[in-house]
Amino acid sequence: MLVPPEASRCIVVTSLPCGPINEANFNLEMRALRPLEPGEFLVRLHWLSVDPFMVSRLRAEANYTAGVSVGDVMQAYGVGRVEATNSSQYAHGDFVTGFFGMREWAIDNGESQVRKIDPALGPVQTALGVFGLAGITAYFGLMEVGAPKRGETVAVSAGVGSVGLLVGKIAAFHGCRTVAIVGSDEKVAAAVTTLGFDAAVNRRSARLDLDLAQACPDGVDVYFDNAGGDLYDSVLQHMNVGGRIIVCGRVASAHLAETKLDVGPRDANAILVKRLRKQGFLATDYASRAPEAIATLAEIIREGGTLPPEDVVDGIDQAPRALVRMLRGDNIGKQLVYIGPEKVT
Amino acid sequence: MLVPPEASRCIVVTSLPCGPINEANFNLEMRALRPLEPGEFLVRLHWLSVDPFMVSRLRAEANYTAGVSVGDVMQAYGVGRVEATNSSQYAHGDFVTGFFGMREWAIDNGESQVRKIDPALGPVQTALGVFGLAGITAYFGLMEVGAPKRGETVAVSAGVGSVGLLVGKIAAFHGCRTVAIVGSDEKVAAAVTTLGFDAAVNRRSARLDLDLAQACPDGVDVYFDNAGGDLYDSVLQHMNVGGRIIVCGRVASAHLAETKLDVGPRDANAILVKRLRKQGFLATDYASRAPEAIATLAEIIREGGTLPPEDVVDGIDQAPRALVRMLRGDNIGKQLVYIGPEKVT
Repeated sequence: MLVPPEASRCIVVTSLPCGPINEANFNLEMRALRPLEPGEFLVRLHWLSVDPFMVSRLRAEANYTAGVSVGDVMQAYGVGRVEATNSSQYAHGDFVTGFFGMREWAIDNGESQVRKIDPALGPVQTALGVFGLAGITAYFGLMEVGAPKRGETVAVSAGVGSVGLLVGKIAAFHGCRTVAIVGSDEKVAAAVTTLGFDAAVNRRSARLDLDLAQACPDGVDVYFDNAGGDLYDSVLQHMNVGGRIIVCGRVASAHLAETKLDVGPRDANAILVKRLRKQGFLATDYASRAPEAIATLAEIIREGGTLPPEDVVDGIDQAPRALVRMLRGDNIGKQLVYIGPEKVT
Repeated sequence: MLVPPEASRCIVVTSLPCGPINEANFNLEMRALRPLEPGEFLVRLHWLSVDPFMVSRLRAEANYTAGVSVGDVMQAYGVGRVEATNSSQYAHGDFVTGFFGMREWAIDNGESQVRKIDPALGPVQTALGVFGLAGITAYFGLMEVGAPKRGETVAVSAGVGSVGLLVGKIAAFHGCRTVAIVGSDEKVAAAVTTLGFDAAVNRRSARLDLDLAQACPDGVDVYFDNAGGDLYDSVLQHMNVGGRIIVCGRVASAHLAETKLDVGPRDANAILVKRLRKQGFLATDYASRAPEAIATLAEIIREGGTLPPEDVVDGIDQAPRALVRMLRGDNIGKQLVYIGPEKVT
């Protein structure tokens, strides 16, 4: 049994990035742990998740939810074990996931999007990936907004990221042709050989337009866009009449200090001429329907026989580096930070 | 009874515009009329319609349908009377509408989107406006793509144009707050005093953002966009979460020689954060359902007691001028050209 310390290591925001996020925007600090109030419990975090939404939280301008300020512990989802409890709902030893922040120890009353983890689904950290935000994002974005039909072509940007690779698996499960758009030739190879995509394209290719045409010989019916930016303009040229575009992320613009600096060709003509539907999407709107996504993803994983890949960095002090490398697109699969009391093997 | 001449006056395209369309891109010419083949009929046109889609037909780049070339008679919808016939379907004296082109006399076999006009609905030229393309565009764009709910705010650009004013009437009929966005203070006044909008905004206002906020105190739920351009960026700031944007036209970009010159802030962040749905729309996709639109519009007009305003220019030689003035936004209501055998009073 772990004895709670008097303070917890935390990643604190020391400056808001003006341009690309970098490790110097964060610092490792100790924050005191106070005694538990009635209804509260204490969690020892084992895993932290780094996610693209963190970019908008670190921007000064308004977004869909409150940002972080200088001096705050950085926001993050995590997975941990309840080590002490004054709550009737969370017992000692329960593994839970929630929006606890980048810290080793967290006090919560269950209101930070906390839920207990079903150990039958897989290792606990899958609650941060395939059975968590990434899975819910991929599933509802694709199925509810994209509404793919059997035989259609589904393209996805950041195609070997945590969401992108699940979009590919769900689309394939529904009988679609799947095309990953990724950032390197190494990832092109991984997408096709180990991740099950029908085709993959390197977005940095000098002949991107030709590569897209070859990967999508029948055009693109559904574009699950995690990237935005110039790549969006390129894919737009390959959309079929009646196509659907899921605006899920814009990691290509993560380096911009303000959204108003994000400028490009207007898409009105293509949207009009091809009668496209372009729709924004936040996974949190579908939180209450998570079991539906998890059931389908569990079936897909059971059929496939393997869990999706993870990309693990060790140590809470490395969490800022993990965020930067994920935003740079260096990861294949879900980017995680292991901060547990003992090393996983 | 009119005796068909040996030739018809026509408006011929003499050059493709590089930039704004102007009258010098057209010429009035005589084109010979050949004898009727079996199944054909001869129409004396009384009315021509000028429409924003003509811009894209005059561009060299590909669009959703074939463009016009130098030397062609300019494409246009018209209304006229059958004066001679070898067709069992169209009798002498029938009033018809169709895609006949800018000419006084047209030979057709019924395949140019021809339909007979129901004289009970109103004056024959309403087949080019409220009971034609404009009405079908406004009705299906708003109802099918915009899906407005009672009490929501519907904003429409080019709000006193042929489509815009009908969007306002249909939205009001369905219990929505209606806001016209127009190009002059004179049109602001017309929109509110005679066209029935709840509010109107001059898009050229130096305080456009404040004006939009005052006209739409509860934000915008549905934006019926006929304009595109910078105005789109402004309205986007006022969209509510879950809002719908109908991409129907982009007359604000009509002066651009090529669509790739149309550049502006990317909308991905607003679409994502507000979970907006932005969808392209072509009225011709709904042609088979036209009776549904016409029935609703006839009911609205019956209840209102007046036909929507028309803006009429006289003489086929003035058709290019009518097109230019409509694109400049000088019209209130449907822009028509009267070319009939005798002057309407």
